[in-house]
Amino acid sequence: MKIELASSYGFCFGVKRAIKIAENAKDAVTIGPIIHNNDEINRLNLNFNVKTLEGIEEIKDEKKAIIRTHGITKGDLAELQKSDIKVIDATCPFVTKPQQICEKMSKDGYDVVIFGDENHPEIKGVKSYAVANAFVVLEESELDGVKLSQKVAVISQTTRKVEKFMQIVNYLMLRVKEVRVFNTICNATFENQDAVRELSKRADVMVVIGGKNSSNTKQLYLISKEFCPDSYLIENEAELNAAWFEGKNLCGISAGASTPDWIIQNIVDKIENFTQNS
Amino acid sequence: MKIELASSYGFCFGVKRAIKIAENAKDAVTIGPIIHNNDEINRLNLNFNVKTLEGIEEIKDEKKAIIRTHGITKGDLAELQKSDIKVIDATCPFVTKPQQICEKMSKDGYDVVIFGDENHPEIKGVKSYAVANAFVVLEESELDGVKLSQKVAVISQTTRKVEKFMQIVNYLMLRVKEVRVFNTICNATFENQDAVRELSKRADVMVVIGGKNSSNTKQLYLISKEFCPDSYLIENEAELNAAWFEGKNLCGISAGASTPDWIIQNIVDKIENFTQNS
Repeated sequence: MKIELASSYGFCFGVKRAIKIAENAKDAVTIGPIIHNNDEINRLNLNFNVKTLEGIEEIKDEKKAIIRTHGITKGDLAELQKSDIKVIDATCPFVTKPQQICEKMSKDGYDVVIFGDENHPEIKGVKSYAVANAFVVLEESELDGVKLSQKVAVISQTTRKVEKFMQIVNYLMLRVKEVRVFNTICNATFENQDAVRELSKRADVMVVIGGKNSSNTKQLYLISKEFCPDSYLIENEAELNAAWFEGKNLCGISAGASTPDWIIQNIVDKIENFTQNS
Repeated sequence: MKIELASSYGFCFGVKRAIKIAENAKDAVTIGPIIHNNDEINRLNLNFNVKTLEGIEEIKDEKKAIIRTHGITKGDLAELQKSDIKVIDATCPFVTKPQQICEKMSKDGYDVVIFGDENHPEIKGVKSYAVANAFVVLEESELDGVKLSQKVAVISQTTRKVEKFMQIVNYLMLRVKEVRVFNTICNATFENQDAVRELSKRADVMVVIGGKNSSNTKQLYLISKEFCPDSYLIENEAELNAAWFEGKNLCGISAGASTPDWIIQNIVDKIENFTQNS
C-alpha cells in the first residue's frame, strides 16, 4: 500500500506563531487551550512549563497570560489588561481581523451575521466585539423569522467551508438590501481543504489527523468522507487500527492546522509498520 | 382552453409613474424611448404630443425634456441641465438608487462590478456614475484575469435574474476580501418572475407580452420557456398564431413591466376568439 500526504496539511501560520510565542514565554499560562491539540499542549507543558487554564477566573499569582490562537472575548481581554498579569497575545492575526470587522460593522449600524459554531472559542471571541445585533448561525434557516436590518455584514469562522458560507450570503441577498461580505475564511483552511478533496478522490483509505474539538480538522474529515467513505479521524497513533488498511492500495493522510509534524510522522511510521507486517 | 394571467405581471411602479409624468408634461421630448414599448410610445405621441429622440444631440428648440425610466448618463444629464430646456426626471427611483450606489462606492475606493447588459441604457447610465474602475458583466467568467481591488461593490441591473447575480457574488467571494452586495433587482421584477415561474409549470402554452428590447420581458420569457417549452414572446396581438393554441388546455399569460394593460387585453380577446372559433 502506498501512503501519500495531501499537498497541503497541518500547521498553519497562526498555530506556528502561537507555539513559538508560548515556547519563548515559558512559565506562562494560556487562557484556554492555546491550540486544539492535546499532545502539543502536553509538550509545551513538559518542556516549557506553559500551563493551560480553563478561563481567566482560574488565574492566581501567575505572571504571564498567553491568549490562545482562537482569541478570547473582549470582556476577558479587558479584565486581563486591568490586572497585573503580563498579557501576551497569540491570537491568530486571521482571527483578530473578524473581531475588528465585527466591532466596526456593528458600530456602523450593520447587523452582523457570523457563520460559525457559537460554542467555539473563536466565535465567542468574535461575537463579543459586536455592540448591537449579532447572529451566529451554521445554517441560513436559523435566520428564518429573525428580524434583520436592511444592512447586514457577514463574516465567517476562519475554518469553515466556503460553499456553505456562499449559501448564507445568497439567502441574505434575498432578504436585505445590502449584504457586506467579508471572506474571513483563512487561506490555510482553503489550501488544506482543496488538498484533502483532491487526495480523497484518489485514495481508498484516508486518515485525517487532528484534535476532536478542532473545527478545521472536522471540516477536513467531512470533505474526505464525502469522496472516500473509508475515512478516519484520529488524534494520535494509538487510535490506529491495522484492519483499516487491509487490501487497500492508496492511503491518503491529511492533518488539521493544529497538528504538529511529529504526531503526523508517528502515524505514518505506524501505518508503514502495519503494511510491512501484513 | 382556459386562459390564466400570472398572479403578477405588467406595468411596474416606475413605468406607471413615467407614463403619468409624460401625460402631464405634454408637448415634450423624451431622451430615448421613455419605456420599452412601441405601442405605448405611439399612444403618448398621438394623445399627448410626447416625441421620442434618440439622444440629446437631436434636441433643437424643444422646451421640455423627459428623462426615460432607465435614466441617462451623468454626462448627458449635466449637458441638459446646462441648457435652457426644462428637465423632467422620469427615471425610475429603483434605477436612481444603483446610480447613487455606483458613484458612492466608486468614490469610497471600491471597484464596482455591475451585473447587466452594457448596451442597455439603464446600465450605460449607472456605469457613467463610477469615478474609477467599473466592470459590466453578464457572466462571472468575464472577470477572469481582470485585476480587481480587494474591495468590490456589486450591483445589478434592476431586471436581472437573482440566481445569476448570486453566482457572480459567489465568484467574487473567492477572489477578494470584501464583497459589498447591493441587491438592486427591483421587487416588481422578482414578483413577475416568481409568478411566471409558477404559472409556466402548470400551463401547456405560454404567451409573454413585451418589447423585444425589454430586458425584464426577456427574463420572463426565458423563465417561461424553461418550464413550458411552448412559450412565445410577442409585442402585440398581430403576432399571435392560432396554431399555437390547438389542443392546449391551459394558456398562461405574463407581460413585462412596460406592457400596458390595453395591449394585454387585446391579446387575451384575440386568443379567446381563436378558441371559440375552433
